[in-house]
Amino acid sequence: MHLGMVGLGKMGGNMVRRLRSKGIDIVAYDIDAAQTRALGEETGATAVESLEALVQALPAPRTVWLMLPAGAITQGAVDRLAELLETGDRIVDGANSRYRDALHRSEALAGAGIHFVDAGVSGGIWGLEAGYCLMLGGDKSDIDAIRPVIEALAPAADRGWVHCGPVGSGHYAKMVHNGIEYGMMQALAEGLALMKSREDFDYDLAALTEAWRHGSVVRSWLLDLTAGFLGEDQDLDAIAPVVPDSGEGRWTAIEAIDQGVPAPVMTQAIIARFESQGGGDYTARLLASMRNAFGGHAVLPSDQA
Amino acid sequence: MHLGMVGLGKMGGNMVRRLRSKGIDIVAYDIDAAQTRALGEETGATAVESLEALVQALPAPRTVWLMLPAGAITQGAVDRLAELLETGDRIVDGANSRYRDALHRSEALAGAGIHFVDAGVSGGIWGLEAGYCLMLGGDKSDIDAIRPVIEALAPAADRGWVHCGPVGSGHYAKMVHNGIEYGMMQALAEGLALMKSREDFDYDLAALTEAWRHGSVVRSWLLDLTAGFLGEDQDLDAIAPVVPDSGEGRWTAIEAIDQGVPAPVMTQAIIARFESQGGGDYTARLLASMRNAFGGHAVLPSDQA
Repeated sequence: MHLGMVGLGKMGGNMVRRLRSKGIDIVAYDIDAAQTRALGEETGATAVESLEALVQALPAPRTVWLMLPAGAITQGAVDRLAELLETGDRIVDGANSRYRDALHRSEALAGAGIHFVDAGVSGGIWGLEAGYCLMLGGDKSDIDAIRPVIEALAPAADRGWVHCGPVGSGHYAKMVHNGIEYGMMQALAEGLALMKSREDFDYDLAALTEAWRHGSVVRSWLLDLTAGFLGEDQDLDAIAPVVPDSGEGRWTAIEAIDQGVPAPVMTQAIIARFESQGGGDYTARLLASMRNAFGGHAVLPSDQA
Repeated sequence: MHLGMVGLGKMGGNMVRRLRSKGIDIVAYDIDAAQTRALGEETGATAVESLEALVQALPAPRTVWLMLPAGAITQGAVDRLAELLETGDRIVDGANSRYRDALHRSEALAGAGIHFVDAGVSGGIWGLEAGYCLMLGGDKSDIDAIRPVIEALAPAADRGWVHCGPVGSGHYAKMVHNGIEYGMMQALAEGLALMKSREDFDYDLAALTEAWRHGSVVRSWLLDLTAGFLGEDQDLDAIAPVVPDSGEGRWTAIEAIDQGVPAPVMTQAIIARFESQGGGDYTARLLASMRNAFGGHAVLPSDQA
């Protein structure tokens, strides 16, 4: 099995390492040529310096797996590959792309006979060792064709991956997976913060989360990770209270509204991130000003908050 | 080690089974005398027919563990035991009691020299095999005194239990644990319901959740259980869409407000249960009536909903 891997960052790089360790031949390309060469030397992947070279180095029919940032960068690579690939080749998008992009890309590529698979990939930096959970959308014939790659990336050949359905269903599943993840994280963080607020009980949150890992209803991989970092530091003063988001949480909330399915927890989880990002600051300034206007209540100057 | 166990329902009964299998001597009492006798015959626990008999059968200093419904029933047992027990004896409340009750009970018992420990117990019907996660509040000397019981109930002697701090901190931790549990459950359920709503993708939610169990960020015991029942039936038509609640979710939301700690996800999770219980039905009738009043929009008769 030969695979072209485009994008060798935290996810793509480790996926190449895992695939190479399982004997898959890889042609690897990243815009960072030095990184590409280093990964090639480390893993035995064939390092190339352009998409053209990647396509030329792969035997037909080619499979090119994209692990690039979702959005314009992924779209640019798809557009360029549409010019370079041939009928019967296929593109797998492993980014956290919006599922509608999968539908558009699949349609756009179909005219040239290029196949498309959307692959939701979960596992983060731990996937190298533990394997990646894969949610795949596309034709069964395409899933069958890349099955050696799927089985090598997954935690085991027969588990941790699922052919969800047609094109789009893989990224849709990954979007919802991440919406669930946002909600589970938020619940854990809120609960621990509530306990931290009870200074009279002086909780050792590291000991508590460690205990919860065994026999409790909330035991989970997120709890395992949380117990791990709380074991090193539970004040977290050095961590700015700002939580970025990368799209899937927003899309999940929008999709829930589109579908008329109440999703208050997944929606509140993304709203909480917006608050942490300062997205509610002007609202809060307005509210402070209204209290001042109707009740004469003091407002706090910005530099004293 | 001798222990009196009061309340032999789903939790207390299995806890007696686990304790007996680890060689702890048990004097067992439940208001259901037949159930008490049956458990005694099954496990070798000494079955008694009253709290008086339980206290008489235990060597001093006595430890009586209550696994009764929180609230009036637990309070009644504490009040009766306050009359029966002696200085140096202790009561452990293993119910999902409100943490402030632990503070009141501890104070009320202190005058008679009776010690009090609040024990949050997680693990449900699976605890018999897997062990129970225990969150304990009370004096260190009391925790030390009942340590053989703790180590027998926990998943292992050295894990799955924690002495949280002073009286009240154990039930507070369990309250928050359950608030987190409500939020995690709600996130999972919302996400799966959103996928179910996309009939065009025709998801096999059993296969999907089974895949998520391996390598994904949302892997968790709740997901394991969910994948299990979805494997048998994923339409769930026979299950009424009503989610009861047993107190801790409400208390967590109230506590978050008392503490001024934003807990939108834990709060939305309990609100979603109220909606499922019909708590929002009159609100919805009002809203339908308002739309009718200002816009002439049709209202649906109750018997056609």
